Amino acid sequence: MDKNTMGQHISRQFNVELEEIRNKVMAMGGLVEEQIENATMALVSGDVEQAEGVISRDYQVNALEVDIDEESIQILARRQPTAGDLRLIVAVIKTITDLERMGDQAEKVARMAVHLADMERPRNQYSELQHMGDLVRKMLHGALDAFARMDAEAAAKVAQEDLKVDSEYDAIMRQMITFMMEDPRNVKRTLDTMWSARALERIGDHARNICEYVIYLVKGKDVRHITLEQMTKEARD
Amino acid sequence: MDKNTMGQHISRQFNVELEEIRNKVMAMGGLVEEQIENATMALVSGDVEQAEGVISRDYQVNALEVDIDEESIQILARRQPTAGDLRLIVAVIKTITDLERMGDQAEKVARMAVHLADMERPRNQYSELQHMGDLVRKMLHGALDAFARMDAEAAAKVAQEDLKVDSEYDAIMRQMITFMMEDPRNVKRTLDTMWSARALERIGDHARNICEYVIYLVKGKDVRHITLEQMTKEARD
Repeated sequence: MDKNTMGQHISRQFNVELEEIRNKVMAMGGLVEEQIENATMALVSGDVEQAEGVISRDYQVNALEVDIDEESIQILARRQPTAGDLRLIVAVIKTITDLERMGDQAEKVARMAVHLADMERPRNQYSELQHMGDLVRKMLHGALDAFARMDAEAAAKVAQEDLKVDSEYDAIMRQMITFMMEDPRNVKRTLDTMWSARALERIGDHARNICEYVIYLVKGKDVRHITLEQMTKEARD
Repeated sequence: MDKNTMGQHISRQFNVELEEIRNKVMAMGGLVEEQIENATMALVSGDVEQAEGVISRDYQVNALEVDIDEESIQILARRQPTAGDLRLIVAVIKTITDLERMGDQAEKVARMAVHLADMERPRNQYSELQHMGDLVRKMLHGALDAFARMDAEAAAKVAQEDLKVDSEYDAIMRQMITFMMEDPRNVKRTLDTMWSARALERIGDHARNICEYVIYLVKGKDVRHITLEQMTKEARD
């Protein structure tokens, strides 16, 4: 085997490793998506068993984070990647941290679902939380899709959705404050609803972070701490 | 210059770079410590000007994150570090993400301080938040200290403090719920107090994360998602 063939051989193996790690990130993301969906469903339908399923599966999300993290560091040590490959590994290390924290927030929603199942249900059946849960789950799905296709423009578009999530969140908060002031007996249930809305809002923030890593990965530009308009421009340029 | 001298020369330069990046992390950590201290003081004393100072300085924390992140990735690309040096860079990349989020939480506390300054003050002058603020600022200080001295055992000790923070937080929450139920006119002030306590509790979590990175850096072991007892054991072994 001459040097050139060996080089190609190594780079082929390396590509397989990179592909594997991307697949693992997608699998972890898919699991977190499910956790968000099930936690929201459990809350809306008052299904304690489903909520407990989410709580007991959080360890799987954590295990995937540790596994992918280890593999990424091994690739850094063994392959010493540069340029785009290096950016991919850094983006993976950051993405899985956000995915793990989204998993924690889904678990929090599931814990609230267990509390709320014992209490009287509001007339609207928590439809505002259902809506917010759908929004953030779709954001995560879009962010993962942009990651898989290395599509910076799509990532910027998904990040924009965070504005909708934030305005939904503000509306829920205002409504809950009114509820509590109307009747102190509403306090506990309303607080649990608030914590759930808060957890979903945080999931939206994490999805936006992942979009920022995708833009960094594709464009090599750090788009954190700038406005959404600037980010969209950077993703397009 | 023979090969050996050149090798030493490169490694000397590399050591300077590593030292520089560690110093920058310490400087960023020091700034975040100040932000936490000032935000808590502003809240307790109702000092709007001080609170606005914290809010306007958050961009400095963000800028440091972007700067250190870039430098870390450049070191990965140029120096292709392995073993302990690689772990240091990975620990730096993760630590600054947590520091930046602590900065965001300090900013949140400062925003609550602005709201609360307009409202009637409780008899205890928010002493419970002062206490919690002190606790988490000391946790961060201890975590940074352990990072600077590469002391895994000290890091495990600091992480333990998170239990105190969590129990303070639970006590504040219980008290606030009672407040709200007693008098609906307390709702807004009480919610702002709750959000502040929540932000401080999150700062404690981030400090604990930094302790985990220090143990990873020194011992090469991933101690996330295990109990504090196991963590202490791993740090000692």
